[in-house]
Amino acid sequence: MMAEDALRWEKVASEEGPQLPLFKVCIDVMRHPQSAEKFERLVLESEDWVNVVAVTRDGKSVMVEQFRFGIGDLTIEPAAGIVATGEDSLSAAKRELLEETGYASDKWRYLGSVQPNPAFHDNLCHHWLAEDVVAVQPPEPEAGEAIRVHLMTLEELREAMRAGSLRHTLALSALSRVYPLWELPYIQNDSNDQ
Amino acid sequence: MMAEDALRWEKVASEEGPQLPLFKVCIDVMRHPQSAEKFERLVLESEDWVNVVAVTRDGKSVMVEQFRFGIGDLTIEPAAGIVATGEDSLSAAKRELLEETGYASDKWRYLGSVQPNPAFHDNLCHHWLAEDVVAVQPPEPEAGEAIRVHLMTLEELREAMRAGSLRHTLALSALSRVYPLWELPYIQNDSNDQ
Repeated sequence: MMAEDALRWEKVASEEGPQLPLFKVCIDVMRHPQSAEKFERLVLESEDWVNVVAVTRDGKSVMVEQFRFGIGDLTIEPAAGIVATGEDSLSAAKRELLEETGYASDKWRYLGSVQPNPAFHDNLCHHWLAEDVVAVQPPEPEAGEAIRVHLMTLEELREAMRAGSLRHTLALSALSRVYPLWELPYIQNDSNDQ
Repeated sequence: MMAEDALRWEKVASEEGPQLPLFKVCIDVMRHPQSAEKFERLVLESEDWVNVVAVTRDGKSVMVEQFRFGIGDLTIEPAAGIVATGEDSLSAAKRELLEETGYASDKWRYLGSVQPNPAFHDNLCHHWLAEDVVAVQPPEPEAGEAIRVHLMTLEELREAMRAGSLRHTLALSALSRVYPLWELPYIQNDSNDQ
């Protein structure tokens, strides 16, 4: 068994990359732990993200439909956004839910966090569950947003998955902590059956 | 109800952004469907990705431990990689599993695909299940990789999740289509109980 050090790369240098929207770009020069060869690696630095599974008293999920610029198409997702500097993730979750949907709740539960992509992102995405949400104001999207709110049953979420409009990994990651979104496949372990 | 056009942004211009590792950067100028205001939006173009839930005949998952540059720490994930130009996702899955772990299978099942992040990525990540995998050669990592292979039970996967080493959304997305990784929370819908 290799020592853990056999897997840990050493950072030889790090320089700020070109200016981009959304991220601070760093180009790190990293030394391979075994060959000592140097490689340039991309790191996109950003604040943490948050998304919110928001459920009404009658069991519907408050979802947002919006144009996503990466894929150039509409998606259906839970309310989501960026945790502002100095903000905690629960405050960000409450703020984004209110801004994007007009809904609020006083019943919040933390569902855990995931790494959006540890290969090049340095941040986490925090999943929150808001129960018994109620509409308290009209949505107040930012100038750079255009959003439509949908109240969806579990069957409608599954239909959106089948149709391809609900396919964002972070959306599914949060929702899958609340709902049984898919059947688990039967794994065949008995080789005699082949 | 707004027409669908009320959510669709128009692309006014698109120019190639700065050179980065991993991605082709585009800066799109997009017109808001309601206000007509223009916004610059980042798109990171890349080939599709693939990852592989690989299960041995005795029910252990073949996992890889490696240093991830975004978070600057080690992670535990299924074998994964980039679908090469002209390659189909199954061929990429077989190739990445073999290169990173030395394991192979002749029993493959497609688990579906997700959008890694439709806000700024244009690609998909394809999830594959390989059953009855067997070690057929030593791993052959690329020069830019340093990888350790682990055979893990479901309980060990859950332990890695608790410890924080198995936390990559795309890894969890694939594994959660095969294993019950978490308990679903009990959602309280009867407000009279409060």
